[in-house]
Amino acid sequence: MAIAAIEKLIIQLCKLPGVGRKTAQRYAYFILGMDKDQTRDMAVALLDAAENVHPCPVCGMYTDLERCEICSDPRRTDELLCVVSDPKDVVAMEKTREYMGKYHVLFGSLSPMDGIGPNELHINALLERCQSGTVKEVILATDSDAKGDVTASYIAKLLRPLDITVTRIARGIPIGGNLEYIDEVTLQKALEGRQKI
Amino acid sequence: MAIAAIEKLIIQLCKLPGVGRKTAQRYAYFILGMDKDQTRDMAVALLDAAENVHPCPVCGMYTDLERCEICSDPRRTDELLCVVSDPKDVVAMEKTREYMGKYHVLFGSLSPMDGIGPNELHINALLERCQSGTVKEVILATDSDAKGDVTASYIAKLLRPLDITVTRIARGIPIGGNLEYIDEVTLQKALEGRQKI
Repeated sequence: MAIAAIEKLIIQLCKLPGVGRKTAQRYAYFILGMDKDQTRDMAVALLDAAENVHPCPVCGMYTDLERCEICSDPRRTDELLCVVSDPKDVVAMEKTREYMGKYHVLFGSLSPMDGIGPNELHINALLERCQSGTVKEVILATDSDAKGDVTASYIAKLLRPLDITVTRIARGIPIGGNLEYIDEVTLQKALEGRQKI
Repeated sequence: MAIAAIEKLIIQLCKLPGVGRKTAQRYAYFILGMDKDQTRDMAVALLDAAENVHPCPVCGMYTDLERCEICSDPRRTDELLCVVSDPKDVVAMEKTREYMGKYHVLFGSLSPMDGIGPNELHINALLERCQSGTVKEVILATDSDAKGDVTASYIAKLLRPLDITVTRIARGIPIGGNLEYIDEVTLQKALEGRQKI
């Protein structure tokens, strides 16, 4: 019953994040039901992305240019540097339309248990950018979980000798959040981070 | 900020069933983070499946052979025909390792609202198979929802003039099911379908 080509497709689709065998099978049978042209378009989109998109050599954000649009935008200040774990976090930050500085993508979070130390991340490149003297403030926007916090603390410590303000994005109640349903750690952080009005 | 190649990839991934823009974006950025070779493997798996896999001309199940393995298996009886909506339902049925008949895939369910009538499904081919005289029983294993029920009723009516037993797979409490949590329609069907022990 196992058809090699379907089996291979399922195995490939299983690689996607959060996709188990059952979902991969669902995707595979859907793909088999598509027109050949549509499947070809999907395959071409994969190959094109792999061929034309690469991390920006300055900040690490994905781009199809030599340097990414953000790094080469003259309206954006070099004095602010926002540090994120992943290129897709840049997309999330950009959606705010508030931030007018540059970015630095670490490509992961510190996780000694998984063998991910500072050398596995783009932390040296960050240090070099900070040592150049133009950066005035580094905003640590790593995830608000254990790994993200450890990564932020590590970088904060690393940058301490430099004359740079290091900040961490605020933790607290999300907008629309109902106090009743907020977990105690978030509430505790919200209390700690309270501000005068 | 919109990079054409990434945008195209996201649009292609959005086509997958149950995948919205956010999930597609997650998949796309994951794919961008893979090695080029891995992405190529994924694209090749897509193309290979589209190239080599086609519906069996007899039953409609996907196969890379001229006729599918089930149709050409001499140990399986031609007297039993199990009718399903989708090729992946054949996979589900085969997992029981109980059924030793053949299949017929309809490629959909009747859904007049979506413009899917009998001519859009492989119902004529089913009728032809049944008229050949070898089939003794047709088991209707379409989904247990409104569309699946309508499809089953339609086929049952269509086959009535022929000398064939038409059955519908049983509806009732799933194994491990707790009466307390079973919806009333299922319970009602379970009562209706009660059997002497």
